[in-house]
Formats: sequence, structure tokens, C-alpha cells
Amino acid sequence: MSKKLKSDLGWSTADRIVVRGHDLVELLGKTSLGDFAFFELKGRLPTPQESIVFNAITVTLVEHGMTPSAIAARLTYFGAPEALQGAVAAGLLGMGDRFGGSAEDAARMLQDALGQAKPDADLGALASRMVSDIKESKRPIAGLGHPIHKPVDPRTAKLFEIAAENGLSGRYVELMRLVGEEASRVFGRELPVNATGAIGAIASELEIPWRVCRGLAVMARAIGLVAHLQEEMEDPLAAEIWSRIEDESSSHLRPGSG
Amino acid sequence: MSKKLKSDLGWSTADRIVVRGHDLVELLGKTSLGDFAFFELKGRLPTPQESIVFNAITVTLVEHGMTPSAIAARLTYFGAPEALQGAVAAGLLGMGDRFGGSAEDAARMLQDALGQAKPDADLGALASRMVSDIKESKRPIAGLGHPIHKPVDPRTAKLFEIAAENGLSGRYVELMRLVGEEASRVFGRELPVNATGAIGAIASELEIPWRVCRGLAVMARAIGLVAHLQEEMEDPLAAEIWSRIEDESSSHLRPGSG
Amino acid sequence: MSKKLKSDLGWSTADRIVVRGHDLVELLGKTSLGDFAFFELKGRLPTPQESIVFNAITVTLVEHGMTPSAIAARLTYFGAPEALQGAVAAGLLGMGDRFGGSAEDAARMLQDALGQAKPDADLGALASRMVSDIKESKRPIAGLGHPIHKPVDPRTAKLFEIAAENGLSGRYVELMRLVGEEASRVFGRELPVNATGAIGAIASELEIPWRVCRGLAVMARAIGLVAHLQEEMEDPLAAEIWSRIEDESSSHLRPGSG
Amino acid sequence: MSKKLKSDLGWSTADRIVVRGHDLVELLGKTSLGDFAFFELKGRLPTPQESIVFNAITVTLVEHGMTPSAIAARLTYFGAPEALQGAVAAGLLGMGDRFGGSAEDAARMLQDALGQAKPDADLGALASRMVSDIKESKRPIAGLGHPIHKPVDPRTAKLFEIAAENGLSGRYVELMRLVGEEASRVFGRELPVNATGAIGAIASELEIPWRVCRGLAVMARAIGLVAHLQEEMEDPLAAEIWSRIEDESSSHLRPGSG
Repeated sequence: MSKKLKSDLGWSTADRIVVRGHDLVELLGKTSLGDFAFFELKGRLPTPQESIVFNAITVTLVEHGMTPSAIAARLTYFGAPEALQGAVAAGLLGMGDRFGGSAEDAARMLQDALGQAKPDADLGALASRMVSDIKESKRPIAGLGHPIHKPVDPRTAKLFEIAAENGLSGRYVELMRLVGEEASRVFGRELPVNATGAIGAIASELEIPWRVCRGLAVMARAIGLVAHLQEEMEDPLAAEIWSRIEDESSSHLRPGSG
Repeated sequence: MSKKLKSDLGWSTADRIVVRGHDLVELLGKTSLGDFAFFELKGRLPTPQESIVFNAITVTLVEHGMTPSAIAARLTYFGAPEALQGAVAAGLLGMGDRFGGSAEDAARMLQDALGQAKPDADLGALASRMVSDIKESKRPIAGLGHPIHKPVDPRTAKLFEIAAENGLSGRYVELMRLVGEEASRVFGRELPVNATGAIGAIASELEIPWRVCRGLAVMARAIGLVAHLQEEMEDPLAAEIWSRIEDESSSHLRPGSG
Repeated sequence: MSKKLKSDLGWSTADRIVVRGHDLVELLGKTSLGDFAFFELKGRLPTPQESIVFNAITVTLVEHGMTPSAIAARLTYFGAPEALQGAVAAGLLGMGDRFGGSAEDAARMLQDALGQAKPDADLGALASRMVSDIKESKRPIAGLGHPIHKPVDPRTAKLFEIAAENGLSGRYVELMRLVGEEASRVFGRELPVNATGAIGAIASELEIPWRVCRGLAVMARAIGLVAHLQEEMEDPLAAEIWSRIEDESSSHLRPGSG
Repeated sequence: MSKKLKSDLGWSTADRIVVRGHDLVELLGKTSLGDFAFFELKGRLPTPQESIVFNAITVTLVEHGMTPSAIAARLTYFGAPEALQGAVAAGLLGMGDRFGGSAEDAARMLQDALGQAKPDADLGALASRMVSDIKESKRPIAGLGHPIHKPVDPRTAKLFEIAAENGLSGRYVELMRLVGEEASRVFGRELPVNATGAIGAIASELEIPWRVCRGLAVMARAIGLVAHLQEEMEDPLAAEIWSRIEDESSSHLRPGSG
């Protein structure tokens, strides 16, 4: 017996288009793109508070300047101008463990810890055990520290403030903060919660499964990559980047180079 | 002399993150994801009217049910669960000429026609010339007709209504409508403006270059694909799809099949 | 001070194209694609024995029938016929942990074990420790067992035979075999070395780093995907696959479905 | 009635794996990767002459140094080291109209021209008409000229020589040559047949449909990209490339830059 294929996301007939049980046409003009993304993921529209918080964390992920992803997208567009979708896809492919994965790792750490703890578990003691386990395993702690934004990532403070103002600063956010404080103490250096740590914690408050958190980064960055490609169409950089890198990287091999 | 590399999208220092000249942290909590996408593309925040219209056209593009893109994303996730970004990318790669390209084609047709016409050109006469040129060239007309939504695509009426209510129903929308009417007359069958035709026209009202219109579909669909992957994590379909297709497509080759 | 960019793979001038130090034009007509792949990875042409063995393992990876990768590539081509490269890329994106990763995992297990062992370490004792460690960790053992090819994967026997005939069946192959025998004994069921286990072991004999083994699957499968797309051009399946899956997966939502 | 899904490429049972009607295990050790690629595309093994020629054209496409594709693949690997397949896919996505498309365009031009001509049509007259049509349409001529390899691309001469020695220099190759000569005369500058022109012509001699020619570049380049990623693992360039481009491209925006 084969399994019945079944999806609850959308369907349409001659005169109706239905997304997650709602008539799409009735949502148009009333629902913003960010709220619709929440709706797609959760099956219900956000409350006004959830809307502010969800939009804030996704907006944070849209544009990080000339990242490896943005450069890869531009170089791909140069070779395949017929297929903008391919250039965006190439850029998104770099949103892996190092970039897109960091909010996921933080959310996973928090969701694993609170999922296994009693509902009234002491968060300070929990943070202490988490940091000590991680120290022993010699892995890096997700969501802490930043190569540039020291000592404090300005996005973190703002995102935590927005979550608190909207009643979405609960035990995940508190635990993330405590892990940061404990880690700074144990490792003897500033390890503040970074933006992806804040996003992982706040996404957990919104009950978004950790496996989906990388997807928040991916969907947001798709927007940023389209903007980079628009700029590349107007003022192309790819040929110059290619030429410089090709020349320099092969200069030691060329005749007369020695 | 080499060309100076230059991008105006974003940069950061230890305590500031700047996107298109605005401090990102000041936008958080105030700007929705859709408005931020407009900001990324246009370099300024939308007016309230532009916000409603831009969000409406992008929301329309998020979720189209179990499309080839959604199926490809799910199959890819099955093989590479370590890399959600790859599954989203695989889904986006199908947003090409057949899907993502249709809003682009409509916008291009309109922007080319109005770009070459005088500002006060008669739109009826222009539509008539456009349809007659297209008929002669035997190409399909962008933005018209739909295999399922007949005689009228319910999204088109709603999107045009939203554009009109917000003062964004100008000469592009009018020309798209006239092309639809003229084509229905000339080809002798109902060829109503479809959703991508409406989106191409409205994006043109928002002064989004036609080359970027495919990007609107790509950024919106990235959201829908993450929702499909979330559903696939909870209730996987990929193995069943694979098994059925593999069995059927090779059944004529297997011993005893004849 | 910035790091000098440097690549040894290739460069060209007006009248010469050089790949890994050899004039490309002198290799044309003498070097097969598989031997050139070996040359790209190792920086030297293979011996006749290495050539037979390397070509055999890569040929094994080209075509596995109507896999999730092949289906995803076909669906992508349907949506984006302008960009064959995107359809191949979509197919390759499914060559992750579940498929492309299995030869990598086997090679890693063997290279880690023999890398840490003394050159004359007893392989039986080593295999025994490896299986007992893996059993304790509750992870699956890389390179063993197959859902279909039971009790013996016919490719494994052939690949090991080819390696032996060409003097490339050394301690990696021996260890892989012993791990299979030991695992079958410890877990009390047939766990024969499968094709990816054989490929991981033989790639290790060829001194290909385990991190690159997934790449062998990726490069070989690119060939198979082009063949699938050629077949899709001649006799398209994507529309039918889409239609069936869309209808079935939304049938429970449609009016009158209850 | 739904269409029966059907693929002739491969299938397997417990003890057999069959590719295009041949037992895979019997081909292992006898068939090289390039010959197997020919077999996948054509459904039969190549003759010795076809083997030499097909391997020569695919080898030509493997490695072109530090191309935009190679740089994009390296940048993607930096962000997503867990998914080598994603980095290869990102690199392949740049093999579009500008790169992968050039052999396709040349093959299309030749296959269209000879497909419509009588079997004994005079090739000089045909070339003359083709060049004059292209000149009128103001499109570039596929397969001619090269920014670096002037006046003669050394690969072209060698590939044509190999084709001739193996009895595969027929009317497609002759027509390509004549188009080059005629174009040089009509446009008054050197427009020699370049490597992709030679490959498009020779692929046509092998009766490979023009739509598949881009696939030859894609499959070959997948090999080259794996080699670039191996080098990137050993001696990473991505972080340095990122850092330089990010700094320079935002320097005009940073405080004190004016």
C-alpha cells in the first residue's frame, strides 16, 4: 500500500485560490509579506505583537552588505544573465552552516535544553550546565560573540527590546542571555549574544522549530540578493572581480613571473 | 587601470549597521519585511499606498500549492537534509521562463511600449499595434490567459482594485487591460489579464525595472518553499514520490514486464 | 597585510592554455575525460592501473535511474528551459548526506582509523574496535548494507575485483571488508559492504581525501543528469508528475472531498 | 487518462543494475568515464574514433582557471562547508548563456542551417547567406572570436585535427570553418573559430542535439569545480576575496571616507 500524498499549504479551482485554508484574494491588500510568511509557517496570522517581532527578526537577515553570497550571486549573473533565479540560488547556497546555520544552532541549543528541562527549571543552573558541557566538548557556543560587533552587537539589544515590549521575551530569551553571561565568565572573555543568537532565541519564543530557523535566513536573504542583482545590472562589478582574481591567482605560474 | 568596486547597499562597523544609508537598528520594529524589500530595491521606504500595493503583489507570489518547484525542493531535502538552503535553491531554480518569467515578460512588454511612446500616446491605438505585432510574430502574449482560472483570474481583479484604491493604477495598468481586451477580440477567445500580467503592470507603476520582476517572484517563492520544507519535515512525501515514479518509469524494462 | 591569492589549476595566454602545469592542447586526443579528472584532482596523470580503477568507481556513480535528483532536475527544466545548467544544479543539490555523503562517510571512517593507527596495526582488531565504538554511539556504519541489493551488492564484488587486479586493493579495502564482516557478526544480520563503501575504500587507496569523495559522486552524477534532461527534452514527464502530485496532495482540501 | 511515466536510462533489482540496457557490472573496468558519458547520451558505446573525439571535446571544457564559476563555488563552500554539492551547483549556475551557451549557440546555428539545407547544398554559399543574415540581425556570430586567444585559438586547430584524423570532420566542421572565413571577410577583422565553435561543430558531427551541448560544458565543468574545491580546502582563498571586496566596495560609504 502506498502512502497518500497530502499537503495543507494551498490549492486552487477556476475561481478560488486557497492558502492554508484562507481565500488568498481576501488576504490581498490586508496582509503584509512578513505577516504572510508567518501565516505560511504557522497556519494562522500573527497577533500585532507577533507581527512586529517576526518582521524585526526577518528584516535583520535581509542585507549584510557585500557578503560571499552576494559576490557569488553577482558572478553567477555575469555568466547566466538569462536566469536571475540561478544567481539568487547561487547566493543562497552559501547560507549554510557558517551563516544561515548560526541562528539554527542557537535555536537548537535552546529548544533542546528547555525541551528536556522541567517547566520551572532554574535557568541560571541550566545555563551553567550548558556552558560547562559545551566547554568540555570543545565546540563553539552558538549565538555568542562576533568578529566585528564588539563588545555589543547593536542588533541584539534592539531585538531583545522589541521582543520585551511585545510580550515575547520569555524563557528562551532569558536562557540565551544567561548562557552569554555564563560563557563570558567561564571563558574569561566578552562573549555577548550576537544577532543570530537573539534571532534563534526570539524565533523559539514564536515556537518556530529550530530546523526551520535556517529557512528564516534563507527567505530574508533572497530579498537582499535580488537587490544586489539589481545593483549589478545597473553597475556591474563581476567582470572586474573576475579579472583581478584570475590575474593575481595565476601570476606565479605565468612565464616571467619568477 | 582597474575599475573601483562600489556597492551602495550596506556596510557595518563595530557599533553600526547601515543599509542603503539608514541605520538598520532604527528600522527594526518599525519596518515590515515587505516594506524593507521595497526599501532594498528602491532606496527609500514606501508611502503607505505603495506599501499596500507592493505587499499585495509579492504576497500573491508566495504560495501556489504543490508546484514543480515545491516538489523539487522536497525531493532535494530528502537527499540533503543537512542543507536546507540547497532545497530552497533547487525549488527556486524552477522559477524560470515558464513561471518566474511571466511577470517579467508582461512588465517588459509594457515598459518597452510606453518607454518608446510619447507621454500622451493613445493607449487604445498602442494596444492595437502591440497585439497585431505579436500576432504576426506568432509569439504568445505575456500576461494573458490561464489554464485554470477562466474566464477571470480572481487575483487580477483584486490586484487592480488595490492598485486603483491606492492611486497606483496608471498607464501601465490601463495598457495591460487594453492589450487583454484587444487580444480577446483579435484572437476570438477569452484572453483575460492573468495574475502575472497584473503583477507586471503594477510593478511597472511602482517603477520596478522589468529585469527585476522575475526577482519579485523569486524572493516571494523563497518564503513559500521554506513552508513546504517545514511541512516535509513533519510529514515527508519525498520517499513515496520517488518510489512511485521510479517503479512506474522503469516497469517496462524489468524482467517479466512484457 | 592581505594574503596573496594563488591557484595552481590553470591559466592561459594568447597562444597557450595550461592546466596543472601541462599544455592542455598536448593532452587533447590522448587523455580521456576520466583520466583528466584524476589529473585535475591529483596533479598527475594516472598509471594504467589507476586509470582503470578510478574510471570504474566514477562510472559506478553516473546513473542510478529515476532518483530524487533526476526527478528534481526534470521538474526544474520544465519551469526553466532556458537554463539547463539550473536543472543540473537542482539535481546535484540532492547529492547530500543521504546520497553523495555515503562514500564520503566510508572514506572518512577508514582514513580516520588508518590515519591514527600504526602502519602495521592489526586490521582485524582495528575493525573490531571500530564496530564496537560505532555500536556504542548508535550511529549507522558507513558503507554497509543496502535496501535493495541483498545479500550482496554486485557492484562491490566487481569493484573490489578490479582494484585487486590492478594492485590497488590494500589496507583500506581490507579494513572495509573486515568492518563489514565484524558488523554482520556483532549486529546479527547481513551487513555487506555496499557500492559506496567500496568506492570510499578504493578512493582511499587512490589517496583521495575523504572530503573530496562526495565530489566524485557529484561530478559523475552531473553526467547522468544531463542524460536525464536529454530524455526529458525528447519525452517530457514533468507536467504529468506535477499534475498527479498536485491533484492527489490537495484532494482532501477541495470542496466535496469529504 | 494520465500519461504513463517511462524512462529508458536505468533500473535495478536485488542482483542486477542495468543502464541503458547493459548490465552496469559488466561495463565496470572496461569503460572509461568519458565513454560512459557518450553511452548515457547516445545509448551505445562509442567507436574508438568517436571515443577519442568525444573525450577531447569534453576534456577541453573541464578547466578554464579561476573563472567566475570557480570563484562562486569557492565563496559558496566558505559559507556552507557541510554541502560540497551546493558549492559545485553554485559554480555550475554560472555556466549559462555567456559561458555554457556558446557551444550550444554554435551547434544550433550549424544544425539549423544544415537541417534546412539540401544534403548536397553548397557550403560556401550557405555560409555566405548565414553571415549576411546574422550581420543584418546585428547579433554576434556564435563560435567566432576570442578576447584572449588571438589570432588563433590553439584548441580549435587541435580539435579539428583530432576530428579529421578520426573521420569525424564532415559538413558541420566544414561549415563552421567557412562561416569563420566569411565573417572575417565581411566584418573586416579576424574572427577565427574559437574553442566553443569547434566543440559545437564536432558535437554536431557526433549527432548530439544542440540543446544538449550546454550540458557537455556543465558535466565537464563539474569535474573542474571539484578540483577547485579541493584546492580551496587545502589553501582557502574565499575569506581573503570576501574581505577585499567588502572593504573596497563600501569604502565610499564609511565615515571619514569623503
